[in-house]
Amino acid sequence: MRSSQYLLSTMKENPADAEVISHKLMLRAGLVRRLASGLYTYLPTGVRTLRKVERIVREELDKAGAIEVLMPMVQNAELWQESGRWEQMDAELLRFQDRHQRDFVLGPTHEEVITDLIRREVTSYKQLPLNLYQIQTKFRDERRPRFGVMRAREFLMKDAYSFHLSQDCLQKTYDAMYQAYTNIFTRLGLDFRAVLADSGAIGGSVSHEFHVLASSGEDAIAFSTESDYAANVEMAAALPPQSNRPEPTQSLTKVSTPNAVSVDEVATLLAVAPAQIAKTLFVHARQDADATGPAFVALVLRGDHQLNEVKAEKHPLLAQPLTFASEAEVLKLTGAQPGSVGPVGLAIPVIADHSAAQLADFICGANETGFHLTGVNWLRDIPDFDTADLRNVVSGDASPCGKGCLEIRRGIEVGHIFQLGDKYSQAMKAGVLNEDGKNQILTMGCYGIGVSRILAAAIEQNHDEHGIIWPDAIAPFQIALIPMNMHKSVRIQQAVEQLYEQLTAAGFEVLFDDRKERPGVMFADMELIGIPHQIVIGERNLDQQQVEYKHRRTGEKSLLTLDAVVAEMQAKIQTI
Amino acid sequence: MRSSQYLLSTMKENPADAEVISHKLMLRAGLVRRLASGLYTYLPTGVRTLRKVERIVREELDKAGAIEVLMPMVQNAELWQESGRWEQMDAELLRFQDRHQRDFVLGPTHEEVITDLIRREVTSYKQLPLNLYQIQTKFRDERRPRFGVMRAREFLMKDAYSFHLSQDCLQKTYDAMYQAYTNIFTRLGLDFRAVLADSGAIGGSVSHEFHVLASSGEDAIAFSTESDYAANVEMAAALPPQSNRPEPTQSLTKVSTPNAVSVDEVATLLAVAPAQIAKTLFVHARQDADATGPAFVALVLRGDHQLNEVKAEKHPLLAQPLTFASEAEVLKLTGAQPGSVGPVGLAIPVIADHSAAQLADFICGANETGFHLTGVNWLRDIPDFDTADLRNVVSGDASPCGKGCLEIRRGIEVGHIFQLGDKYSQAMKAGVLNEDGKNQILTMGCYGIGVSRILAAAIEQNHDEHGIIWPDAIAPFQIALIPMNMHKSVRIQQAVEQLYEQLTAAGFEVLFDDRKERPGVMFADMELIGIPHQIVIGERNLDQQQVEYKHRRTGEKSLLTLDAVVAEMQAKIQTI
Repeated sequence: MRSSQYLLSTMKENPADAEVISHKLMLRAGLVRRLASGLYTYLPTGVRTLRKVERIVREELDKAGAIEVLMPMVQNAELWQESGRWEQMDAELLRFQDRHQRDFVLGPTHEEVITDLIRREVTSYKQLPLNLYQIQTKFRDERRPRFGVMRAREFLMKDAYSFHLSQDCLQKTYDAMYQAYTNIFTRLGLDFRAVLADSGAIGGSVSHEFHVLASSGEDAIAFSTESDYAANVEMAAALPPQSNRPEPTQSLTKVSTPNAVSVDEVATLLAVAPAQIAKTLFVHARQDADATGPAFVALVLRGDHQLNEVKAEKHPLLAQPLTFASEAEVLKLTGAQPGSVGPVGLAIPVIADHSAAQLADFICGANETGFHLTGVNWLRDIPDFDTADLRNVVSGDASPCGKGCLEIRRGIEVGHIFQLGDKYSQAMKAGVLNEDGKNQILTMGCYGIGVSRILAAAIEQNHDEHGIIWPDAIAPFQIALIPMNMHKSVRIQQAVEQLYEQLTAAGFEVLFDDRKERPGVMFADMELIGIPHQIVIGERNLDQQQVEYKHRRTGEKSLLTLDAVVAEMQAKIQTI
Repeated sequence: MRSSQYLLSTMKENPADAEVISHKLMLRAGLVRRLASGLYTYLPTGVRTLRKVERIVREELDKAGAIEVLMPMVQNAELWQESGRWEQMDAELLRFQDRHQRDFVLGPTHEEVITDLIRREVTSYKQLPLNLYQIQTKFRDERRPRFGVMRAREFLMKDAYSFHLSQDCLQKTYDAMYQAYTNIFTRLGLDFRAVLADSGAIGGSVSHEFHVLASSGEDAIAFSTESDYAANVEMAAALPPQSNRPEPTQSLTKVSTPNAVSVDEVATLLAVAPAQIAKTLFVHARQDADATGPAFVALVLRGDHQLNEVKAEKHPLLAQPLTFASEAEVLKLTGAQPGSVGPVGLAIPVIADHSAAQLADFICGANETGFHLTGVNWLRDIPDFDTADLRNVVSGDASPCGKGCLEIRRGIEVGHIFQLGDKYSQAMKAGVLNEDGKNQILTMGCYGIGVSRILAAAIEQNHDEHGIIWPDAIAPFQIALIPMNMHKSVRIQQAVEQLYEQLTAAGFEVLFDDRKERPGVMFADMELIGIPHQIVIGERNLDQQQVEYKHRRTGEKSLLTLDAVVAEMQAKIQTI
């Protein structure tokens, strides 16, 4: 491609409205343009990368036995009413009426449509299992679209849905998809991790997220330093300490702590580490049918630890969703403001996080505004309590796999696989005749990849101060051909035209920068766009029948003789 | 692909709700399923064909220098208000509001979005010309969606838009796109014609439609029997007769024609051919600014000819859009009911179609209810009249190209290219600095292909009583491998497995029908799906180390020795 016949659309300045680096670089490198909030047009350079991602995704899914379909973006409301999501989903689900005042949605996912299809088309166990996928445009009316295509309203997604008669069969397809995802992200050239995840509102039990690792990532991931274990921080278990709790050595003492409300303030005032302070949170209890149990529960954590709401929500005593007591309720329960509360003398159940339960001679609020207790000890001062895993893991925690310690890194979620179970098939009565001739409700898996999001994630992970550094497999072009002052030198022009012809004939995707621009502008643009391999043709090197090669990622430079360029590029460039 | 691991979804019976053959066969062969009115899910077999069409379209457009982009399906209303189409378009344009009550549309085309992009990104003549395309999902809220994917609401379209500073430059790109379209439909293996077309509401002047020829087509196309000339019947010029009008031989006579109102009734009553009768239509005249001209005009056509409203609307004397006089207005103008009117003695302008103006001693209404005139002659009886081309051409007319006669055939429109001019660029002020440093409004072309519609059109043209007959280039599979009673014969099983391996290793797309079905069911399904090449493995032939080959289109059968199958297929199958 000659840049003079292309829509390069690079920008020198950082756009004012872009917050994250991938958004800035996607605008500056001419990959996308904003049409309206959360709506982006992909410019030619963006489309080239998008199509490469699509191709790799498609090839690996085909290999894994998934079969491609294509479902409509516009879906009739009836199916969503049947699954219950018409009521469950908030304004993120875009609803509208057609010219005949019938209700429709713009599909954010396709569980309903595919389940409806399968219950019509599949009647016998002989037709199962099936794993169907599509690469298709989705719409989610985000309240606050941001970070460019990272959290857009309209986006390209690969979604797959599998149908089974047994958990075993589901597990096999799930494993195959796990492997396909691993192949995909490996071929894309990204540093990623598959992590155990919470399956959340979508239902089901087992689930893994695939994260592209990047310091700017929204999600925290816990890794073992000595095994393959990786989990979303929400999911990583904090193991109970192996040692016994130390014996009490101090007596319970009430101290005045005026104006010290937060853990840090109390720690400073009393000159102790936050880890020696227990913080207490009051939440609603889960109610039985007859609502005879307690209304509230106190949760106790070490001052330096954070409550993990996903774990807390799964505790059988606690309300779902997790609901915090109001300030007025706390006052009523303890007689004190929230900054001066503690587990001593409460009339409601107390659950201590494993680490908090390990404390001895610790400090907590006195349940009297402006006062704390020191020398607090479990059993002696708080006779009745339970323990549980209630906190986020932190760096240095023992890994739940039993090997090594945990390390926390940040990631960008680009894929998610779920064992859905029968959430949709049950609601929509999707069953088939099994081998015994009886109707059996199907078991489902679902598998997503944020195709357009991968572009942003790849850039968050692969960039420097000059611009994007594309992995070879998804670079919009493989080679940038940069002639110096071509428009003033017939010799340069002939050499570069010949190289362009040779390289394209050899099957390389070449961006030939034939613009009448200064070399500096051309270098800056090619670095910004992030083309992995650059070839610079200048007078001086041409005297020796040579051109300069530069590798975008390493900065490595070398001289190549003109007639060896094609062979050298064939050696350097991995084909996808 | 093994059919046991595939979603074949064929149907034996004709679906009740399908009106046209392509719709019936797309349902029966398992290409699509209806989700809701005008909304279709593409099943695996449909997607395979769709992707092949996409690939051919993409390759030929890339070759023609067009550059791929991807624009959002959801578009903000402001742009449509700016172009004027927000008001101009009826309920076919689906409008909705997002969660913040902002107005949006689901894009039926992308002129506004692309013109907005170009006015932002392109500032200098040096960046032109540009020709950008996308293959993308569109939505048109048809009042009456029908014929399956032929007239769906959500559909896949290739749309391209080109931008220029001169008509010459536009013409060059237009010619290149004409050639690209010709290449595309040729590679798709379709019998098609490019025809001159009316550019209609989309604006602009020159335009061609690309039609797949099929007797079931909605559009009538006029061809020369002796040249390349082809035009939409709306556009084909009816040449004035070459001979002179015969001299009058009869005198003007009024005859009573009670109850004879239509041309056919008058022809029967008076025992003449309809071609000897002139019919008269009254329409509104085009009004000047000061509205001093006549209010109505009489149009005269031969009784066997049809008014061409597109031609009439272009006549400078006639209102745009063409508007017929009401019965009351006709009565006031002529003193007679519409069935008894004619051009003799009118006080308003008369325009005769060239063929009607050639009549002598003809018959027309007497402008007195229940009476006609015979022996009518132009000039003598109607001294003042104009002539114009007002009718649809008919089979046997001289071709406007000067060579041969016209023949009328039916077609399905699958592509349309337009020279748009400045309709959008003017309204949206899309200009660049030209070579003289002055701002100049851009000239545009636009180019559409109905990608999903091509499937239906291909089937309308290529089918028989057994099902679809795909052209090789877009067949979902190239080869159907059909073993007879494989599940009872190890020998058959071994032979077919080996063939399957050999053929897939050779790069062929093979559907291996490994279902436990009777041979008859398998044959019927493979014929229905329309796989071009069938290989049948049976015991008797296997005794001779042979298999049977059948060509779906010709029905030609032959025996192939096992070890020659791959080579024979390589010889028979055109790669795309």
